[in-house]
Formats: sequence, structure tokens, C-alpha cells
Amino acid sequence: MREPFAMPRMKAAVFVEPGRIVLDEKPVPDVGPLDALVRVTTTTICGTDVHILKGEYPVARGLTIGHEPVGVIEKLGSAVEGYREGERVIAGAITPSGHSYACLCGCASQDGAGTRHGFKAMGGWRFGNTIDGAQAEYVLVPDAMANLSPVPDGLTDEQVLMCPDIMSTGFSGAESGGIRIGDMVAVFALGPIGLCAVAGAKLMGATTIIGVDTVPERLAAARRLGADLVVDFRRGDPVEQIMALTDGRGVDVAIEALGTQGTFESALRVLRPGGTLSSLGVYSSDLRIPLGAFSAGLGDNRIVTTLCPGGKERMRRLIGVVASGRIDLTPLVTHRFRLDEIEAAYDLFSHQRDGVLKVAITP
Amino acid sequence: MREPFAMPRMKAAVFVEPGRIVLDEKPVPDVGPLDALVRVTTTTICGTDVHILKGEYPVARGLTIGHEPVGVIEKLGSAVEGYREGERVIAGAITPSGHSYACLCGCASQDGAGTRHGFKAMGGWRFGNTIDGAQAEYVLVPDAMANLSPVPDGLTDEQVLMCPDIMSTGFSGAESGGIRIGDMVAVFALGPIGLCAVAGAKLMGATTIIGVDTVPERLAAARRLGADLVVDFRRGDPVEQIMALTDGRGVDVAIEALGTQGTFESALRVLRPGGTLSSLGVYSSDLRIPLGAFSAGLGDNRIVTTLCPGGKERMRRLIGVVASGRIDLTPLVTHRFRLDEIEAAYDLFSHQRDGVLKVAITP
Amino acid sequence: MREPFAMPRMKAAVFVEPGRIVLDEKPVPDVGPLDALVRVTTTTICGTDVHILKGEYPVARGLTIGHEPVGVIEKLGSAVEGYREGERVIAGAITPSGHSYACLCGCASQDGAGTRHGFKAMGGWRFGNTIDGAQAEYVLVPDAMANLSPVPDGLTDEQVLMCPDIMSTGFSGAESGGIRIGDMVAVFALGPIGLCAVAGAKLMGATTIIGVDTVPERLAAARRLGADLVVDFRRGDPVEQIMALTDGRGVDVAIEALGTQGTFESALRVLRPGGTLSSLGVYSSDLRIPLGAFSAGLGDNRIVTTLCPGGKERMRRLIGVVASGRIDLTPLVTHRFRLDEIEAAYDLFSHQRDGVLKVAITP
Amino acid sequence: MREPFAMPRMKAAVFVEPGRIVLDEKPVPDVGPLDALVRVTTTTICGTDVHILKGEYPVARGLTIGHEPVGVIEKLGSAVEGYREGERVIAGAITPSGHSYACLCGCASQDGAGTRHGFKAMGGWRFGNTIDGAQAEYVLVPDAMANLSPVPDGLTDEQVLMCPDIMSTGFSGAESGGIRIGDMVAVFALGPIGLCAVAGAKLMGATTIIGVDTVPERLAAARRLGADLVVDFRRGDPVEQIMALTDGRGVDVAIEALGTQGTFESALRVLRPGGTLSSLGVYSSDLRIPLGAFSAGLGDNRIVTTLCPGGKERMRRLIGVVASGRIDLTPLVTHRFRLDEIEAAYDLFSHQRDGVLKVAITP
Repeated sequence: MREPFAMPRMKAAVFVEPGRIVLDEKPVPDVGPLDALVRVTTTTICGTDVHILKGEYPVARGLTIGHEPVGVIEKLGSAVEGYREGERVIAGAITPSGHSYACLCGCASQDGAGTRHGFKAMGGWRFGNTIDGAQAEYVLVPDAMANLSPVPDGLTDEQVLMCPDIMSTGFSGAESGGIRIGDMVAVFALGPIGLCAVAGAKLMGATTIIGVDTVPERLAAARRLGADLVVDFRRGDPVEQIMALTDGRGVDVAIEALGTQGTFESALRVLRPGGTLSSLGVYSSDLRIPLGAFSAGLGDNRIVTTLCPGGKERMRRLIGVVASGRIDLTPLVTHRFRLDEIEAAYDLFSHQRDGVLKVAITP
Repeated sequence: MREPFAMPRMKAAVFVEPGRIVLDEKPVPDVGPLDALVRVTTTTICGTDVHILKGEYPVARGLTIGHEPVGVIEKLGSAVEGYREGERVIAGAITPSGHSYACLCGCASQDGAGTRHGFKAMGGWRFGNTIDGAQAEYVLVPDAMANLSPVPDGLTDEQVLMCPDIMSTGFSGAESGGIRIGDMVAVFALGPIGLCAVAGAKLMGATTIIGVDTVPERLAAARRLGADLVVDFRRGDPVEQIMALTDGRGVDVAIEALGTQGTFESALRVLRPGGTLSSLGVYSSDLRIPLGAFSAGLGDNRIVTTLCPGGKERMRRLIGVVASGRIDLTPLVTHRFRLDEIEAAYDLFSHQRDGVLKVAITP
Repeated sequence: MREPFAMPRMKAAVFVEPGRIVLDEKPVPDVGPLDALVRVTTTTICGTDVHILKGEYPVARGLTIGHEPVGVIEKLGSAVEGYREGERVIAGAITPSGHSYACLCGCASQDGAGTRHGFKAMGGWRFGNTIDGAQAEYVLVPDAMANLSPVPDGLTDEQVLMCPDIMSTGFSGAESGGIRIGDMVAVFALGPIGLCAVAGAKLMGATTIIGVDTVPERLAAARRLGADLVVDFRRGDPVEQIMALTDGRGVDVAIEALGTQGTFESALRVLRPGGTLSSLGVYSSDLRIPLGAFSAGLGDNRIVTTLCPGGKERMRRLIGVVASGRIDLTPLVTHRFRLDEIEAAYDLFSHQRDGVLKVAITP
Repeated sequence: MREPFAMPRMKAAVFVEPGRIVLDEKPVPDVGPLDALVRVTTTTICGTDVHILKGEYPVARGLTIGHEPVGVIEKLGSAVEGYREGERVIAGAITPSGHSYACLCGCASQDGAGTRHGFKAMGGWRFGNTIDGAQAEYVLVPDAMANLSPVPDGLTDEQVLMCPDIMSTGFSGAESGGIRIGDMVAVFALGPIGLCAVAGAKLMGATTIIGVDTVPERLAAARRLGADLVVDFRRGDPVEQIMALTDGRGVDVAIEALGTQGTFESALRVLRPGGTLSSLGVYSSDLRIPLGAFSAGLGDNRIVTTLCPGGKERMRRLIGVVASGRIDLTPLVTHRFRLDEIEAAYDLFSHQRDGVLKVAITP
């Protein structure tokens, strides 16, 4: 028997089982009334995707991975207004509905639209987590009116490729830390998110920014993006080095950008009394708060965690930062692949070979 | 041989060694230019003093204990303006200098006046910690202009006795939690500070306040001070009970008022995504943050610790709360002793006998 | 000729011309994919509706007036999830879309969904302004998922009737003022909104609340809702009276709840240096800021205006306040009318006869 | 008759009468217990001093003018700790006591130490206002421990000369405006304070900064300090130009840096709904708020005024900004004079001749 209508099909990187993300074929998705179908022109791989690949973060078999789309509107849902087909857009990694209790409470990343109370941990993270993602020829953007952000003609795909996740997350480390003009800030781990945290700290007026890592390229990149000082933690205890660099005072804000006990604990130890630990890392085990580092609970400290802020207003602002020329993140794109080659891209990226920071994937 | 001038002497409760705080005699202190000598009319014992008694928190031998003075100005330092001898006053448990970097940075409890950088963990806590305290006939108040707060004639000593510490600390649990009108709040442990946290949560507009403890008198006191619901954690897992009471949503703010792993962890577990744990307890060992309770660092959560806010402006506001009749904390005073009987008072209070909440000590 | 299908019709209070709002018949509205049709069970008249009646605020002829609906879901749009027909609900006077740049920027009342940039002054106010309102048998709620808030069974219509506007606006006067525990607050003009501002100030922990009006019933109502002191401005300059009551200090926050030069200017004059004027009134002419009252621009003062916050999360919180028993606003309902009698209700309300505060209208 | 002890004398610029500030001789001041005597090495003239010169702002006859000292500690009061004689320091234009209710309430510029309630409009501005100022060979710094900020060896006097007033005030325009990453900001009037507001807006992450003035040199200086766009208001209505530049949206924050009805009103008119007007100017007459520009009070707008933040922590942070190299304000120093020539300096500066921005005065 034959199909009466040939359904259009597309290529997509799908999760098969731990250790295997493969390029496969799927139907191009149907467009619901609130959705937009976006033809992906550039996307990338995130550290979180590697967690998925390794089976450390569970997703459904057959799910398309990826949450960082740059593309062109192919088709708009019947109830979507304010956009036109053919428009260049991005959508954030986190796609809030706009109408959940969480969204209306100022906590859109924890959107629980559909739950009775409207809050769900990480509920706003849908692409490549609970719905098909962006490492494909087409991606369906839910709640399009809340999530599609037009890209000005003057900007290339690679210039805005970091907006959906890396830049939004990294900046939020500075924002949630409440950085003020004149602050001293330490950033622990200088992968793409840590580097964006450095850039965010500079954007918010920190005047002593200390980057912590071991990889010379990353330390150099941190300096270019705003770090005043860098600490190589193989050359001695980073806590001691930072306390020496701050003349014994400690920092106002420490940003954790890796997700380990070591970075978390060091970040806590370098805080001045009253300082803030802004945590961005994805942890994979319980954390320990040493009594002394926590001043027994009497230090007027804050520990703040932030999931990547999304939504079209956030994207608009980040695009504005790029357009203003304040920051150029294109040097973070160290390697480029076609979608056809995505398995090779995962191989390179997951093994952190060849000094890779971010890859650009073009369908 | 005789002393040429008889130095006036006074009674004071001093720390001798772990397990021993005794009533002793000491010289009435000399008054420096910025100090005020206050004749204590009422004071009290704090849970922290019991930590000192037990040797769990180290202080110098011979130090006078106590940080909650109500009294009358006996003598003003030569540079002190704006007060008169004979005026009824209180001073906060924390006595910021006003002029440290920490004070001028909005972090007065961590006052490090005298340190090079101006920040010192718990640096603002001086009474009964780094200088002689209030369980005595006289107490010397440092930086008097920043710390003495007049008491209106219409208020009794016992009405303002909780202002210096219990009320300031308890309220700060609500304040640091950022409670907003309509919030759901859980308060873990309903000793004097937890009870004041309940009262503070109500004052700030929380509309579902859940008190957690086991002692019936404390649960009843919580209800009187504003708890809408109470949870006895001997009758089942408090986390489950609170999740049921909030219909699966969790609370916006959880206040920890004891200082144990159990209360800390439970407070974390009952938070809605995006919620805040406001920690008041004095911990005595490392803390563990369970991965799931922390949403692997992706839950947009905050953990905030607060040391009792001090200074005369804080005291003025708390006295205003008392004077307004919004809250009556005098029922917390369950027992009364003369200063001569302070050893018996410590005995009662440290063993939490006879339903004691707070004692009033009158020299 | 006959109509092929009889369209269901309903009664509605429509604006005809300045001076005339009449009860008329209209088709029951069609339900779009994001809408909900609500059968109104109780509604009310707002001071703003009187401005419309008088022609002071222009709306289209034929528009149904009213923005405070309590009712039952009659029909849900095809894309609306999370609700069921027959459910009791309210919707706020302001109905944000949830997906505009303004909403996602934390400024939902200025929703400009549909404009290029997403911001529009008062754009979130749609009911009885840019779309048909609630003084009718049925009202169409736009962006239903962002706006419908279920009403618990235990609460009557009149208990939640103030949530959509009066309570939300009044409380926002306190919230935008940033009231803290221990603040001194003055509220100028004690109509329904000013009374709710008094209640909001008390909910947030103000401890000296001064109500200002001339009508004895309003001054008495203010005392019941939380005012510690009242000032009758016919008995002398209210600024002088308030400065005397605060012992020359002035208030931390002054809330303006009328919309006149006199109340605005007096509110500015009673502020302490560094204080905040929180303005709720709808003004009808230019305002003047006297140089001295403004400390020539050097007083660290703030003037903040707030349009009624809406959306289902706001409504949920206000319903929570009512359900908690913290505040009972039902005494504000002084008169009751059937929808059939709405012209008489306007007559009474617009002339402020018979001590009217709020009317309840039941279709 | 002869004086038994020759009192050391010094030169100082004193106010004689409107129109006359002259160089005179005075005794070097005595040092009280909380004071520090600072030998001035560099100071400057502020626009406020010109208001004093013209008699527009009244001060006592014989008062030494000036509030921007850079110098060396000559002598410390008996109760002053933490400094040493010979140390290079600055003090802010505003010298908070640290111990007033205003200081402890987070409102140090309105310090009313000595008043009963602790608040006084502009109470923190003492130098050249209520006590002798800095245009002299020596200046007495009150409450030295709260106000003296050490200057690192690597920085010249001129590098830190703007910290006490211009930089602190200008930055505060951005800070009080609550600028966030990605904001659009307009700055009205580009004198020294407006230029520092531009720099502050950039430091805080604004990405579209529009400077408004007419003087080409000032527009050019604004571009160097961070303005992305400039508007010459002689070439057309600045409101229209800014609305065109922002594509009809308006700005998130408008900073007023002159103190006139025109700049104030234009700043209000270019705000997006929900935007903030941050006012720095010193006004000399009543202001008018046009009804439409104010959205009749329904636009969720804020008007915020800020007096220059002072105190040693503020100075420390600003010195940190200079030391970090983020901003170089030395080009603002366009002319240099010896203290002997200060009358000529006033003549040049008050007439805004020769493109003067700031003068450096060296005793």
C-alpha cells in the first residue's frame, strides 16, 4: 500500500541510546496554531548535549537534540501574529510559554504551563529535552509569539549563534550575582559559559575580574573578553591565589561555571563576607558546603543558581549587545561542520579535541 | 597595700570555661570618646550564649556574655552627641561602627572596622563575643551614635527586649527571603527566632505560612503569631506534609531557623522552582546539598544567610513595630530571674526545661 | 426576511456618548482560539468608568464598559488548555498577553502585543477600553491562559470582586513604594483604591499608616483596614498635620490615590529626604513639582506611577490574600444592583450618593 | 598687643558676596577627635560652585568653597584609626557621618546626624556648603573614618580628581536608573556630569546610548566615553530625533544632567512605557509634568533623583574603576591653575569659555 500524500522529510540528529546520537530522517513537523516552523540555517552543540550523549541526562529515544537555533521562518501557526514568513530569527534555548504562573511570576525558565500550579523545575527548557530540538533542517518553535526574535540584516548567523544559550547563561551569572560598578569578581572555569560570564561581569561594571582555569587558550580568551587577572589552578590553590590578588579581601561575586564540588567550594571560599556565589554549572552529584566557608551560616552570603533566561525580549537584548559591538563572541566558533557531519562534530566536541570552544553546524 | 582610688565595680556573667558561666565582679568600664556606658535594666539569654556555655563557640575566658541590652544611659563619651544621660535605650546585638567599608557597602553585620579591607565575617557582633556583653550591671556600647536607640516611655523593658536580637534576626529571615504579598512560606523550627520569622513573614504579606516543629506549645505560639498551618514533623515527613498542604506546588520561601542538616535540607526540598531558602540557623557542621533538591543547579533557586541586622535605625524600626501593636512578643518571656540568679537561668534555658522560650534577667 | 440562524444575544452596558452609558443588546461574542467566554455573575463600576461616562476618557461608541469580571467559563477557545467549562474564575482589569516584549520585560501592564516594539502605554488595559468589557452577561477574555484565575469554592463572588482592579491597584501603591517593615506611610484620598492602599501598606509591614481624607466614613474604613492615624484635611493643612504626627520627620512612602495637583503635591511635601511618592491616581491635567518640595532635585526622592497589575498569577495571589482572611474588603460593597438596573447604579456611583464605596452588579 | 602663639595660616577661596569668591587667608583648622586635616594637592571647581558664586545657592559669607579634594593626610584626630599621616587620599563631595539614621537606612547623602530624626535634605553635603571646603591649602575632613579613601601610588591626582563628585554623580544617574544589559539610554546635556552618566551607562551594560547636547566638543567627548549615537538638539526636536533613532520605541532610561524644564520634559517624553527618568540636575524653578508625557499617571514610570553618593567605600569603588583602565576621565581636565589663580579659574569656568570642561587647581 502507498501513502496518499508524500510527507516532506528532513534530517535531524537524534538520540538513540547512551553513546549514540545519529543523523536520521524524520517528517518535517506539523505547525500548530501557536507554533512557528523555522528552517535552521546555523546551530551548535552545547555541553548539555554531551551530557545527553553520554546518558548522564536522560531524554526520550528518538528525540532530536539541540537548543540553539538560528534560522528563517518557514511557516507560522494560524494564531501567530507579528511575524512574517521568510524573516530571519533566533529562539532562546529556553522557550517560555508566556502564560504560565511561573512566567507571570518572573520565573519564566521554570515554566510549568500545563501543570496545575504552573511551576516545573527546568520546565522552560523544551528544545532537545521534552520536544524535538534544533540540530535538524527544521525546528518547531512553540509559543512562537513569546519566543521568536528577529535578527537584523547586518548580523551574521555566527554573530548571534551564542545568544540562545551560551551568552544568555553566561551573562545571567553576572546578573544573578547582582554585580555593581566597582565589584571584584572571580569566574571559575572558562569554557564558553564561563567566558560569557567574564564578558557579562565586564558589561555590568566589575573592575577586577579574575578568570580561573588551566587551559592557556581559555585564559587568553578570558583576557580578551574582560578578565583583568587570570589564575591557573595547576600553579597553586586558586583560593589562595585569589585571596592574594585581592589583598586578603575576597571577591564580591564568584561565578561557578562548571558544576563540580571543587569549583563550587572554591567559589564559596573566595567570597568576602556578604558576598554572592552565582552558580551556573550543571552538577552531577550532591554538593558539600564546608562549615567554615559558609561562616556557620552567619556570613550574610547568597548562593544563587540560574537557568539560561529565554524568550524573545531576552534574545532582543542580547542581539542588541552584539549589534552594539560591545562584545564579539565569534572567536568562540573554532570549528564548522555541515549537519551531515554532525556525528564527527559530536566526536570532536565531546572529547574537547583541537582546542574546540564552540562548533557551528549548518544544515 | 590599699588602692588609692576605689574603682566602682559591678556584677557580670562571665565565661570561665566550657560548661561554666558564672556571676563575677568586674570594674565598671571606662568610657572612651565614642562609647556610652549603659546601666542594664533588663537583658536575656540567647541560644548563642548556650553555644558559648557549652564551648561550641569559643570566646575569651573572663568575657562578659550577652548581647541583648535594655537600659539607661549612665555616661556618654566625649565625642557622642544626640543623646542625654538618663535616657532609656536599647542597642542591637550587632553593633556596627557605621564607618567601615562593610557598613558603607550595605553589609553592616560584617563590619570589619580596623581590618584593612573593612570586611570581617560576623565582625559586627561584638557584645559577648569580642567585647564584654550585656549580662551585667553595666555594658559599654561602642560607636554609641550608630547604636543607641531611645525607647519611648510607653513601652516596658520586656516589650522591647526581643528587638536587639530575636526579632531582628527572625524578621530578617523574612526580609532576606524577599517575601511578597501572597507568598507561601514555611518556617522550620519554632524556637524564639523561628517564631519571630513567622511574625515577620506575616508582617510582609505572606498569606500561607506553615510552621514546622514538634513541641505543641511552640506550634500554638506560631499560630498566634501568624502561622496559618502547622506541621508536626513527628507525624510524618515534613516535606511530604508541606507539599500536600501546598497542593504539590511548594513554597516561595522557606526559612530555616535551627541550624541542622535536617531542617536545611527539608527547607530546600519544599521550595517551588525559583524559590528561596532563607537560612538563619547557626550550623555546627558541614552541610550537604542533595543533587535533586537543588535541581542539579538549574532551579533558579537562592540560598541566603543573614546575621542579625543591628544599628540604631534597625532598632528604631523594630521598636516602631512593637509600638504599633502589630505584634506582641511579651508572651515569649516565660521566666524571669534577677542577675544574681543568672546561673540558674542558664541551667533552665540550656536544658530547655519547663517550656521556656525566653527568660528576662534584671540586674 | 428572517435570519437563517438565531444568534444568541446578551445585555450589556454600552457607551453611547458623553453622559450616556445605557443597557443595550449585543450578540454574545464569538470565541477565538486563545479566548474564553465567561458568563459574568458579578461585576462592579470603577471610578474610571465614570471618567468614561463623563467623556473625560474617550472610548469608542458602542463599547461595552467595565473591567472587573467574576464569572463562570462558558466556552474555551480551541487552543486554550488548563481550564474546564463551568469553572468559576476572575480575570484582572488588565489582561496582558504574556507574549509581548513588555510582558517578558516585567512590564505587563504596558503590553503592546501587536505593536512593533511591544510596548504601549496602558496597552494591557483592554476590557472596556479597547475591547468589550465586563458590564454584560458575557465577557470575552483574551489570552485566556494568561488571564483566567480559578476561584476556590469557599469564596463568594463579592469576596473576590475587588481583586481584578481595586485591590490590585491599591496594593501596588504599597508595592511600588517599596514599603519595608517599620515604614511610616501616608495615603492621600481614601476612596476604594486608597483604602486598599492602606490595607496593602499594612500587609507589607508599615507601622505608622496615616490616612488622609475628609469623609468620616472613609476615615473610619481606613482605620478598620489598617490606618493607625487619620488626618481630616478640612481641619488644617494635611502636610502640617502629618509633619506634626511624624515629629517633623516625614514619611518614608506617600501614596497618592486621587489624581489631583493637591494630593500629588502634598504627598511630595510630606516625604522624608530619600522618600518615595507612589502615585496611583489618574490625572486630568499637567502636574507641577514645586522646587522646594523636590529639594531642587537633590533629595534622593522617587516618584513612581503604577497601573493596576493583572494576569492570572496576580489574581491568584490576591485571591490568596482574601482566602487567608488577612483582609476583608466585602464591607466596601455598599450597594447592590441587577445588571438591568445599571443605569441607576451609574447615577448613584457617579454622584457619590448615599455613602457609596463600591456597587455589586449581578447579571 | 601681640598673639602669644602664631597660628598657622593658609590660603582659601572664600565666598564674600554674590559675584565674589576671592582668595583669602584663614587659620589652618583645628583637628577634632573624629576629623582629619588634609593638605590639598589638587582640587577643582564644580558647576554648583558657580551657582554659589552667582548667589543662586546661598552659603555663609566667609565660607571656603569647593568639595572635591585630593590630598595628603596632615594630621589625624585622636579617635581616628586605620590611617597614617602622609597617606594620599581623596574624600567624596558628600561626607556622610556613618552613624545617622539616614546612613543606617541606606540614604547617606541625606545624612541628618545631629537632627532629631537623622534625615536632612542634602545633609551629607557639607564641604563648601555647611563647613569649609576644599579650595584651600588644607581641608578638614569630618568623620574621617567614614570618608577618607586611600589613593594607590600608581594613580595621579588628576586621574582621581573626578571621583569625589563628577564621576560619583554621573555614575549614580545610571545606577539609580537601574540600567540593565541591553538597555537603550538617552543622556540629556553633556557637561562633565552628563559625560560621566554616559560612561556609567556604558559600564552598566546599556547597548544603545544616545547623547544629547549642542556643543560639538561635548558630543565628541560623549562618543569617546561610550555614546553610540548623538543628537544635536539645534538640528530639530530631540524627542523626535530619539524616537526616530529608537524606531518609535523610546528609551528604557533617560538621564537628565542639566536641571531645566526643557531637559526634564524631553527626558520624560522619550521614555518607553515603564521607563525611568533618572534626574541629576540641580533645578532652579518649579517643574511641570505634562499630562501626556506622564500617561496621566498610568505609564508605570519612575522619576528618580540622586545626590552624589559619598563615603570611602564609594570612593574606593570609583578609584577601582579608574585603576582598571575601564574609563579615563583625565581628558575632561581642559585647564590648569594654581590656587593663587583661582579667581581667574572661576572667571573662565563660570563663563564656559575656551571649551572648558573641568579645571585642575593646585595649591
